[in-house]
Amino acid sequence: MEIVELRQRIDELDEQIVKLISTRAEAAQAIGQLKKVTDIPVYEPKREKEVLEHVQAVNPGPLANAEIVHVYERIMDVMRTLQRR
Amino acid sequence: MEIVELRQRIDELDEQIVKLISTRAEAAQAIGQLKKVTDIPVYEPKREKEVLEHVQAVNPGPLANAEIVHVYERIMDVMRTLQRR
Repeated sequence: MEIVELRQRIDELDEQIVKLISTRAEAAQAIGQLKKVTDIPVYEPKREKEVLEHVQAVNPGPLANAEIVHVYERIMDVMRTLQRR
Repeated sequence: MEIVELRQRIDELDEQIVKLISTRAEAAQAIGQLKKVTDIPVYEPKREKEVLEHVQAVNPGPLANAEIVHVYERIMDVMRTLQRR
């Protein structure tokens, strides 16, 4: 495959990734609402640890687990900001 | 929905997100190979700008565009590391 075609493929994947991250954000937002009414703190280190363990367990490569964690730290970072809004 | 169910939903979404990021990484790896043989540098600011514009254009919310960019900066960061391996 040529670089142009590979980039087209990446653009398509990015559309799907953005869609899934947005759906994840909606679920996080719903959790944020429940946290407010039940007085659970937004930052829950135990749950975040669970998420990081899960994404490493399902990582098929070629990225290293540490790289997947690196990405997910950012994802959880923006989700926390969203829950605080 | 209860928090437990929402978290189950998030875990399922994370499996799909990790899968797509991994497929994206495979395409980036293939581009990395082509870059090596054609002497194109790994860091291409013009293409990275295009990617960031694209993900903002397809962002349906609830995350702000700046938050999607925040996540994608990390994604592109690990992809660059992968291309250099």
